[in-house]
Amino acid sequence: MKSAVCLLSGGLDSTTALYYAKQEGYRVHALTIHYGQLHDKEIESARQIAAELNIPHEIISISMPWKGSALLDSNIPVPTGRKESEMTKEIPSTYVPARNSIFLSFAASWAEVLGAKAIFFGANIQDYSGYPDCRPEYLQAFRELVRLGTKRGDEGKAIRIETPLLQLSKKEIVLLGQSLNVPFQKTWSCYQGKNTPCGECDSCVLRAKGFREAEIEDPLMRYAISSLR
Amino acid sequence: MKSAVCLLSGGLDSTTALYYAKQEGYRVHALTIHYGQLHDKEIESARQIAAELNIPHEIISISMPWKGSALLDSNIPVPTGRKESEMTKEIPSTYVPARNSIFLSFAASWAEVLGAKAIFFGANIQDYSGYPDCRPEYLQAFRELVRLGTKRGDEGKAIRIETPLLQLSKKEIVLLGQSLNVPFQKTWSCYQGKNTPCGECDSCVLRAKGFREAEIEDPLMRYAISSLR
Repeated sequence: MKSAVCLLSGGLDSTTALYYAKQEGYRVHALTIHYGQLHDKEIESARQIAAELNIPHEIISISMPWKGSALLDSNIPVPTGRKESEMTKEIPSTYVPARNSIFLSFAASWAEVLGAKAIFFGANIQDYSGYPDCRPEYLQAFRELVRLGTKRGDEGKAIRIETPLLQLSKKEIVLLGQSLNVPFQKTWSCYQGKNTPCGECDSCVLRAKGFREAEIEDPLMRYAISSLR
Repeated sequence: MKSAVCLLSGGLDSTTALYYAKQEGYRVHALTIHYGQLHDKEIESARQIAAELNIPHEIISISMPWKGSALLDSNIPVPTGRKESEMTKEIPSTYVPARNSIFLSFAASWAEVLGAKAIFFGANIQDYSGYPDCRPEYLQAFRELVRLGTKRGDEGKAIRIETPLLQLSKKEIVLLGQSLNVPFQKTWSCYQGKNTPCGECDSCVLRAKGFREAEIEDPLMRYAISSLR
């Protein structure tokens, strides 16, 4: 059975990518990285999602003491209340320098040891308008890096980097997730380190728009709202 | 003053690269990664070297629970007693899957937050005959990755990846190190996790050959031999 490593943050996108890989017939290995993110509630989401699927799951901890991101440093505000059109103007403060290169490199390491055919990564078009390390050219450069920098690449069996959500809108991701029975209520997207989603950060705004356009109620928000009552 | 991040393992090559960067006028920031290597004596070497230079130094710990290398797994033997000509035949068991991609990505992250102009990396020709992630094409792919995947790259100020030792023989590295006053006795090259260098692993064999051809006595070996008496 072909294997894959899936980067699982615990958010909507990575969880959908993981379910997609599973449907494609891969024996999925989930990799979650605790990198000092203030919204570490997503780690618990990742844990529950992997446990429900009963798949191998590694959670590794790294530190990035230089911070340099609103996701790592509580002194840097997370942008809130922005419209989608405002999000694409510049790289946001929630960008974490070189994070995706670190994550993908860890995934490549595990994939090589496992003999896995592919890495699944939930990057998508909504993010690559703002984050440089989500765009197609970047992902192509990472493919080259893995081909040239691993034993597997040398043997002509380079690990594939699969990004099934790359060209989808959030609405399409929600619809795909629904068709794959993704447990939306277990996923966590909010950038703020609170107990319920803030509803105002870019990630919450995009998620809400996706569910609205897909005409599906987000069970996480239903739960959050009921818990506030 | 221009800044640089230097990957410092504590070995001969990375220490020489660091001294080279310093001589080139960079304000050097040393980055050491504790990745579960059995020869973690090199971490103490790195600490002493950075302390002597009184430069900023981050030592970060990561885990690679999947191992897959003789440097991480004591059940996999470190090759010993090999001639240099035997080392180039295939990728050795001391190869750590995707390690250099992980290391360089962490360096890129810190460099971006610092606003550093360059990353110094002590990869060299002796290694790239055996390790895929030390060869020029790989390093070129990493340059592309950093250019495309960082905010700095987007602004047309991509972080440079400097590999001043790439084309040097070990003899030339020793001679360069001597000219830069590298404290050879503080560096640690042996792959075995012992208190004195084994003298038999590939790393010890290449180091000894470098010093011999440079006609310099390796002070580390003098110390090791005297400590055994």
